[in-house]
Amino acid sequence: MGRDDGAESGHGKKDREEEEEEEVETMVSVEKAFESKEVPSWRQQLTVRAFAVSFVLSVMFSFIVMKLNLTTGIIPSLNVSAGLLGFFFIKTWTKVLEKSGMLQVPFTRQENTVIQTCVVASSGIAFSGGFGSYLFAMSGRIASQAESGPGTNDYKDPSLGWIIGFLFIVSFVGLLSVVPLRKIMIIDFKLTYPSGTATAHLINSFHTPEGAKLAKKQVRALGKFFSFSFLWAFFQWFYTAADYCGFVNFPTLGLKAYENKFYFDFSATYVGVGMICPYIINISLLIGGILSWGLMWPLIEKKEGDWYDKPDPGNMHGIQGYKVFISIAMILGDGLYNFCKVLSRTLLGLYHQLRKKNSLPRVANGSPPESPQLSFDEQRRTSLFLNDQISSIFAVGGYIVIAVISIVSLPHIFHQLKWYHILVVYLAAPILAFCNAYGCGLTDWSLASTYGKLAIFVIGAWAGASHGGVLAGLAACGVMMNIVSTASDLTQDFKTGYMTLASPRSMFLSQVIGTAMGCVISPSVFWLFYKAFKDLGLKTSTYPAPYASIYRSMAILGVEGFSSLPKHCLTLCYGFFAAAIVINAIRDLVPKKYSRFIPVPMAMAIPFYLGSYFAIDMCIGSLILFLWERMDKTKADAFAPAVASGLICGDGIWTLPSSILALVGVKPPICMKFLSRAELPNS
Amino acid sequence: MGRDDGAESGHGKKDREEEEEEEVETMVSVEKAFESKEVPSWRQQLTVRAFAVSFVLSVMFSFIVMKLNLTTGIIPSLNVSAGLLGFFFIKTWTKVLEKSGMLQVPFTRQENTVIQTCVVASSGIAFSGGFGSYLFAMSGRIASQAESGPGTNDYKDPSLGWIIGFLFIVSFVGLLSVVPLRKIMIIDFKLTYPSGTATAHLINSFHTPEGAKLAKKQVRALGKFFSFSFLWAFFQWFYTAADYCGFVNFPTLGLKAYENKFYFDFSATYVGVGMICPYIINISLLIGGILSWGLMWPLIEKKEGDWYDKPDPGNMHGIQGYKVFISIAMILGDGLYNFCKVLSRTLLGLYHQLRKKNSLPRVANGSPPESPQLSFDEQRRTSLFLNDQISSIFAVGGYIVIAVISIVSLPHIFHQLKWYHILVVYLAAPILAFCNAYGCGLTDWSLASTYGKLAIFVIGAWAGASHGGVLAGLAACGVMMNIVSTASDLTQDFKTGYMTLASPRSMFLSQVIGTAMGCVISPSVFWLFYKAFKDLGLKTSTYPAPYASIYRSMAILGVEGFSSLPKHCLTLCYGFFAAAIVINAIRDLVPKKYSRFIPVPMAMAIPFYLGSYFAIDMCIGSLILFLWERMDKTKADAFAPAVASGLICGDGIWTLPSSILALVGVKPPICMKFLSRAELPNS
Repeated sequence: MGRDDGAESGHGKKDREEEEEEEVETMVSVEKAFESKEVPSWRQQLTVRAFAVSFVLSVMFSFIVMKLNLTTGIIPSLNVSAGLLGFFFIKTWTKVLEKSGMLQVPFTRQENTVIQTCVVASSGIAFSGGFGSYLFAMSGRIASQAESGPGTNDYKDPSLGWIIGFLFIVSFVGLLSVVPLRKIMIIDFKLTYPSGTATAHLINSFHTPEGAKLAKKQVRALGKFFSFSFLWAFFQWFYTAADYCGFVNFPTLGLKAYENKFYFDFSATYVGVGMICPYIINISLLIGGILSWGLMWPLIEKKEGDWYDKPDPGNMHGIQGYKVFISIAMILGDGLYNFCKVLSRTLLGLYHQLRKKNSLPRVANGSPPESPQLSFDEQRRTSLFLNDQISSIFAVGGYIVIAVISIVSLPHIFHQLKWYHILVVYLAAPILAFCNAYGCGLTDWSLASTYGKLAIFVIGAWAGASHGGVLAGLAACGVMMNIVSTASDLTQDFKTGYMTLASPRSMFLSQVIGTAMGCVISPSVFWLFYKAFKDLGLKTSTYPAPYASIYRSMAILGVEGFSSLPKHCLTLCYGFFAAAIVINAIRDLVPKKYSRFIPVPMAMAIPFYLGSYFAIDMCIGSLILFLWERMDKTKADAFAPAVASGLICGDGIWTLPSSILALVGVKPPICMKFLSRAELPNS
Repeated sequence: MGRDDGAESGHGKKDREEEEEEEVETMVSVEKAFESKEVPSWRQQLTVRAFAVSFVLSVMFSFIVMKLNLTTGIIPSLNVSAGLLGFFFIKTWTKVLEKSGMLQVPFTRQENTVIQTCVVASSGIAFSGGFGSYLFAMSGRIASQAESGPGTNDYKDPSLGWIIGFLFIVSFVGLLSVVPLRKIMIIDFKLTYPSGTATAHLINSFHTPEGAKLAKKQVRALGKFFSFSFLWAFFQWFYTAADYCGFVNFPTLGLKAYENKFYFDFSATYVGVGMICPYIINISLLIGGILSWGLMWPLIEKKEGDWYDKPDPGNMHGIQGYKVFISIAMILGDGLYNFCKVLSRTLLGLYHQLRKKNSLPRVANGSPPESPQLSFDEQRRTSLFLNDQISSIFAVGGYIVIAVISIVSLPHIFHQLKWYHILVVYLAAPILAFCNAYGCGLTDWSLASTYGKLAIFVIGAWAGASHGGVLAGLAACGVMMNIVSTASDLTQDFKTGYMTLASPRSMFLSQVIGTAMGCVISPSVFWLFYKAFKDLGLKTSTYPAPYASIYRSMAILGVEGFSSLPKHCLTLCYGFFAAAIVINAIRDLVPKKYSRFIPVPMAMAIPFYLGSYFAIDMCIGSLILFLWERMDKTKADAFAPAVASGLICGDGIWTLPSSILALVGVKPPICMKFLSRAELPNS
C-alpha cells in the first residue's frame, strides 16, 4: 500500500517484498499443503466474529493512521500488523470457544483474509478521507494560517455531519470501479501487487502448523512492544502540562539544534515507522532535513528584509512561504516523474497484453482458462476466483447511480463545486482508477494523491479565484482521491484473496462493510482529535497536520498562479522541481547497486516543511534494525516487523485515552520544561 | 570490605562469598595447577608498571568512593572492579610490549595482587579519611546547618594542607598494627576473610587459561557499561544548568512523591550498587524510606507548632532533628548489637583457639607447621607466606614512633584535642584493631565507624562543651577510624596475598605505597569536589554528604546530652534504638530461610535522613539482576559484577571532568525543569 504523499513508498519496500514473492514461487505448491482443507462457501467466510474483530482493529488503525496524518503525514504499511493482530484475536477467541466446547466454525485463512480486507478498507478511509490533507485544508484554521488573497474567506470548517455524508457518497464508487478490473488485473495480466502478495503469503503461512508457531512468537513480540510503547506514551503524558513541555520537546542535541528542529523526540511510533521503512527513505528524510533546516532556511533567514519583509511565522509571504512552496515543488516534481513513469509502463504493459490477447484466442469469460502451462496453485486459485462472480452490469449500474447522486448532492455540501466539475471528475475517474490499479500492481506505488493534486489544479483553475476555486479544487481532490485510492487498495486485496482462496464475493462484501465502517469511524476519530486538541493544525501544535497547509497552498497556487510567492521563491521552486525529476531519473538509470544510495526526492521534501525531528526518530529505528540484522539476521527478519508494529500500535492507541482525557478536561500534572541558561533568573 | 556505615555490609554479601569459598575448597588443588610457574621474588613482584596502574586506578576509585561518600555514604565493595581493571590494564600493557618484543617480565598473579592491594589501601583512605563523615563534619558549613548551642563556633574548615598532614600522621599506624597480627589471623586462626578470599579466587582464576578467557569477556562487558554509564552521565550534565534541574530531579513517580523524595533519579551508579548489594539490603532501604518519608515524617509534620516550632528546614530543633536523630538511634542500635555480637564471637573464638594451642604443642615461629593434615595448597601457601618476614620489632617500634609524632603534632592541627586524648586513643587502638581484624575475618563486617563513633562520644564528653568537645570528638574519631579500618582492610589483603602466593613483604610495601598515594590523592579529589561544587554538604545539593551532618549531630549529642532534641524525639529514638537491636536479634535467631526476609536496620536508617530516591535506583538494580538471574543464571552470575562495576565506574569517573568543568566555570547550557501545573503562568 504505497502512498505517494506518505513517503513510506513502494520504491524500496518493494525490494523486500519482491524477495518474499520470489521465495513463494520457488516453494513447493502452497495449495497442495492446503488441499485437505475444505474451502468454505462465500457465506461461511463472512462470520460475525470476523466483523467484530475487524471493527476493533479498524478503530485502532484509524487512530494510528489519524495520528500519523496529523503529525507528519508519513503512513507506513499496516497490512502486516492487521494480519498479525487479526490472527491473534480470532485465534484467542476460537481457543476460548474451543475450550468451552462452543466452537462451531474453525478459523480459516479465508476468514483471516476477510478481516484483513475489511480493516484495510476501513482504515484506508482515514487516509483517503483527507483528514490530514485536503479535507482539513478546507478549514478556517488552515485558511487563516495561509493568509493570502483568495483563501482567507474561502473555507468550510469540519463538522461530523457533512464529512460522514461526503465520505458515504464518494467512497463506494472506487469499490464498484474495481469490480470489472479485477479479473483483468489478476487473472489476465497476472500483475504482482507486491504488498497484496506479501500479505497473502503471511496469511497462508499463519495457517500452516509451523507458521502458526512463528506467528504466535511474533504476536508475543508485538504484544510486548505494544505494552512498552503504550506505557511509554502514558508516562510521557504526565510531563506535558503546557505547551513546549514534555519529551516531545526534549532538546536531545542541544538547544541550538532544537531551534532548528533537530532533536530526538522519543516517539515510539516513528522509531517503529523507521524500522519498517527502507533505509534509503529514512536517510533521504535526514538529508532533506539537513539540507533545508541546516543549510537553506538559515541562509534565507539572513535575507530577511531583502527577500521578504514580514516576520510573522505563519505567513506564506515570509520564510514559511519558502518552506511550503519548495517542498510542494519537490513533491510535484517527484509526482510528475512517477506519473509519467508509471503511465508509460502501464501503456507499454497494456500494449503487450493486448497483442498477446489478440494473437492467442482465449476461452470465454466464466470458465477457467485451464491451459497446460498453469501450475496446480494457479489452476486452483483461478477456478475459485472465478466461481463467485459479481455482475458487471451491477457494477456499472451502481457506478452510474452513485455518480448521479454525487452530482446532485455534492454541490449542496460544497457550494463552490458545480455539477459539471463533478461530472468531469466522474468521467475521468474510471480511467485514472484503472491506471492507478494497474501501476500499483506493477510497482506497488499508489499515485492517488498525485491524481488528487491534478484535480486541485484543474478544477481550481477552472472554477477561478472569484468563484471559490480553492475550496472547489480541494473538494474535487477529495472525490478523485477516494475513487483512485480505493481502486488500487482493493485490487491489492483481491490479489490477497486470490492467493488465499477467499471468494471474490465475500471479499467484495467485506470491502463494502469495511468502507461503511470507515466512513463512520474515521470522521469520528478525527472529530475526537479535533475537539480534544484545540491547536490541531497550528504549526506549534503536537498535531501540526503539515499536509493540510501544503494542500491549501497548492490550491491557492492553482487558483492564483505564482503571484503569491515571495521573492526568488519561484526560482528555487523551479530548481527543486527539476532536481526531483533529475534525481529520480538518475535513480532509475544507474545500476541498482548505486541507485540504492541515491536519496528519494519525495522523502527529502517532507522535512523541508516539518524539520528533522521525526527523521531522527526514524533513523534511530533504522539504526536499531541495522544493528539487529548485523547481530542476528534471521531473528531480525522474523521479528522486526512485529516489534515495529508493536511500537506503532501502542503509541498510536494511547492517543485514544489521551484525547478522551483532553476532552473531559483532565490535564497532565507536570510540565517538563527546557530552559536555556540565559533564560534562568539566577544566572 | 564491609563498612558498617556503608550499609552494603557483609551480612548478605557474605552468603554469596561463602558459596564461592566452598567452591574453592571442593576444587582440586589450585597450587598444583600453578606448580610449573615460578613464584617471583618479592622484589620482582613490585614492578614499576604495577604502581603506575595502581596510581591510575587509585585516582579513579578515589573519585568513585568520594562521590559515593558525598551523595549517600553507601559504598559497595570495589575489590572485584579493581581486580578486573588491574588485570585488564596490565594485560593490555604486556600485550603491546610483547608485540614490540620489549616484554621482559611476564604478568604474574602476585603482581596482580600487588596492584589490588595498593588500590585497596589507597582508595580505602577516601573512606576512612572521613571526607563524607567526621572530617567534613568539622567544617563551618555543616556546623551552620546543625545550628545548636556548642557546635556553631566550634569548627575547622577543610584545607588541603592540614588534611594531607593529618592523614599521613594517622594512616600508617594501622598498617604497622597489622604486621604482628598477620600470622596469627591467617596461619594460626585460619580465618575466612570472605572478601579477601573471593578476590584471591578471582585473581587465581584470571591467571589460568580458561579464567583469562572469561576475564576478557567480563572486562569487555565492564568496558561496554563503563562507556554507557559515562556517556549517560555526560548527557545528563547538559540539562543541569541550575538548581533542581536535570534528570536527578526527575519526578518519575509524580510531583507529590518527588516532594517526599520518592523518585528514580537515573543514577547509573546506584543502579550498579543495587546490582552488587544483596537483595535484602535494597529492600531494607526501600522499607526504611517508605516507613520514614511515606509515613512518619508526614505524621510528625502535622504536629508542627505543637511538637516543634521553627519551620527552618536545616534546623535540628525542627523536623530535621527527628530525621537525623532517629536515624542515629537506629545506626547506634545496630552498631551496638553487632559490636556485642562480633566481640562475643571474637572472645569465644579466641578462647577456643587458645585452648587448642595449649593442648597441642606447636612448632616454633618461623618454620612452617607442616603437620600431615595440611593440604598441598596450604603447605605451599604457608611456606611462602612465612618466607619473607617483617620484623615485629620494626612494627612495634614504628607504632611507638608514629604515636609519639601524633601526640606531639595533632594538637597543633586540632587545638581542641589534647595530648592525653591522643595517648588514650593510641593505647586503646591496637586492641580494637585486633578485635576488628578478627571480627572481619569471621564475619566480613568491619566495625571501623562504630569504633569511631565510640571515640566521638568518649573523647567528646571528656573534652566537654566548653573546651570544643565537638571538634575533639570528631578528630579522635578520625584517628580511631583510620587505625581500625586499615587493620581490617589490610588483613583481608594479606589473606588474598596468602592465597595467591604473594610475598608478605611485597604486600606490605605495596600497602605503604598505596597508603601514601591515598594520603595525597584522596584529599586532592575531595578538594576538587569542595572547590567545584559550592553547595557541597548542603541538604539541597547534589552532594549533600549526609553522614557529615549525622556525625556532627552525634558529636553534639555526645557533648550536650539529650537536651538538644525536639519534643518526643528522644522517646522515638529510644524506640528505634531498641527496634534495631530487636530486629537484629530476630534476624540471628530465626532460621535462615525466614531471616533473609527480615530487613537490616542499618540499611533502613539511611533513607530516614536522605529519602528513598537512591533506594529506588538500587531496587531497580536488584530487579534487573533478579530478572537476569531468572533468564540466565550462569550468565548473570558471571557478568553481573562486571556490568555493575562498569555502571559504577563510568558514572563515577564522569565526576572528574564534571568537577573540572565546574572549576573552570563551564556551566551546562540547558535546564530541564519540572513544574507542577499550578505553577505554570498560562493555566
